[in-house]
Amino acid sequence: MDEFSYISKKLSPLAPLDALNNDAYVYQKNTVITKDIIIEGVHFLKNTKPSNIAKKAIRVNLSDIAAMGAKPYGYFVGLAISNTQQEWLDDFAKGLEEDNKIFNINLLGGDTTVHRGANIISITMLGLIAKKPLLRSSAKIGDSLYVSGTIGDSALGLLTYKKNITPNYKILQEKYTIPEPQIKLGQELSNVASSCIDISDGLIQDANHICKSSKVGLEIYIDKIPFSPEVQLIINDNNNYRKTAITGGDDYQLLFTVKSDFIHKNITKIGQVIPGKEVKIIDSKGKEISFNKKEGYRHF
Amino acid sequence: MDEFSYISKKLSPLAPLDALNNDAYVYQKNTVITKDIIIEGVHFLKNTKPSNIAKKAIRVNLSDIAAMGAKPYGYFVGLAISNTQQEWLDDFAKGLEEDNKIFNINLLGGDTTVHRGANIISITMLGLIAKKPLLRSSAKIGDSLYVSGTIGDSALGLLTYKKNITPNYKILQEKYTIPEPQIKLGQELSNVASSCIDISDGLIQDANHICKSSKVGLEIYIDKIPFSPEVQLIINDNNNYRKTAITGGDDYQLLFTVKSDFIHKNITKIGQVIPGKEVKIIDSKGKEISFNKKEGYRHF
Repeated sequence: MDEFSYISKKLSPLAPLDALNNDAYVYQKNTVITKDIIIEGVHFLKNTKPSNIAKKAIRVNLSDIAAMGAKPYGYFVGLAISNTQQEWLDDFAKGLEEDNKIFNINLLGGDTTVHRGANIISITMLGLIAKKPLLRSSAKIGDSLYVSGTIGDSALGLLTYKKNITPNYKILQEKYTIPEPQIKLGQELSNVASSCIDISDGLIQDANHICKSSKVGLEIYIDKIPFSPEVQLIINDNNNYRKTAITGGDDYQLLFTVKSDFIHKNITKIGQVIPGKEVKIIDSKGKEISFNKKEGYRHF
Repeated sequence: MDEFSYISKKLSPLAPLDALNNDAYVYQKNTVITKDIIIEGVHFLKNTKPSNIAKKAIRVNLSDIAAMGAKPYGYFVGLAISNTQQEWLDDFAKGLEEDNKIFNINLLGGDTTVHRGANIISITMLGLIAKKPLLRSSAKIGDSLYVSGTIGDSALGLLTYKKNITPNYKILQEKYTIPEPQIKLGQELSNVASSCIDISDGLIQDANHICKSSKVGLEIYIDKIPFSPEVQLIINDNNNYRKTAITGGDDYQLLFTVKSDFIHKNITKIGQVIPGKEVKIIDSKGKEISFNKKEGYRHF
């Protein structure tokens, strides 16, 4: 058992049934609450502009709020930082302020500790539900499977930063640095989708989360997965990067199931809900591709 | 301006009026939410038993819930850990589980990241308010000032760990390692106290937080401050440690004001609310002792 499965197994019994099975916890019926930490060297690169660190910390949490079909409300921030120069803090606060305006949210509280280690930002985000929350657990056999945006931009953007891939596609790097949470789409889906998750751990792994919560299988046609022109160029050059694109993390797109076919700009039907327990990836010849479903990032 | 004042000044404008002025944020009238991070080497010692780290992380947050007069509800945990041995995680989970039972709370969500730095535990705790929250901002001139328990045990316990003080008073060390949040007292005070704060940053500094929020002064008689027998022995030996005791952090007692005199076990009247802007410490001869009010830990 890997360390993340182990942590999840240890901590699950401490939570009420289903509390850990969605992108956020549903509190008092009208509120969703989520908490994600980002760490220098793990979730962002060492020399990232502080305002961009602030934005990524906010947005990975907003992506969970989006996946629940909720409207962002406000957040708490916990900072464990080694940088205490005024310029660093000025720019960090500027990032929070800009995203407060963009997403119409407020800082509600938090605390700061100065330590000698990596910069760590822990955010707890609250969202408001208009009617009912979108869950991972209600996908039904026969539903269509959709994904928003394009997949793999961020994972391959990170690789170009690390210089494993050239040229430097700035547009991919930007998607890694400052994700775009699908807030509006999430709210629009709240009356439409039968299940929804945000893709933070990689398409395949998050699809498996829907399988596990909904007790269904998912069939994904690999040729239907939407890639940006830049990602497609990289894959054309080296087909191994297709696997990176669909297992890498940090997409922050929404993966969701809908009972009948659904028309919306910027979404793609990539498969359907089938009987079973896990994701099946189907190639252009209709053959199943074998995948280590545990690849990707892991959170509990 | 020191770094904490600076952070606070930078982040305050991002929050709604008064959101950062209490131990927790009041959400939808019946809920309080607080978030405190604890970091290895800052808030707990490197070789602390993992179950005790879990308990301290929970309890420093419960202390904020207590200060708001609320009943603990549940929490989110963010882990940035370098220890991923099963024994470490087993014992950490055991600590959460034991405190879940003691305080009747549940784990509601969170995430885990493995990194190479110090162990960091970020908890967001929710509490329920029966009638109205206890605030820092309603102290009135003429109110009596009380403190629960004894002051300085934890700060001097930490010093005995660091071997600055001998002998090793185990009872003081335990108070540093596993604080006792004053949950029951907080709820009892919710209809009685005019203001309340938990003492996490040191008696003097937290008293100054009441002054600032309530726009009053506080007069504290140094001879009235309750010390445990062990702390009194240390102070008798070296009077400088009295300052450590009343400015050191991690007491997790409640400091509160009450309109008329108030009888309760385990509380001590140490002064009163006066006109002014800050804390005045008065010695046995009625003379004011000068203090750097900024001493102690600082959070925003």
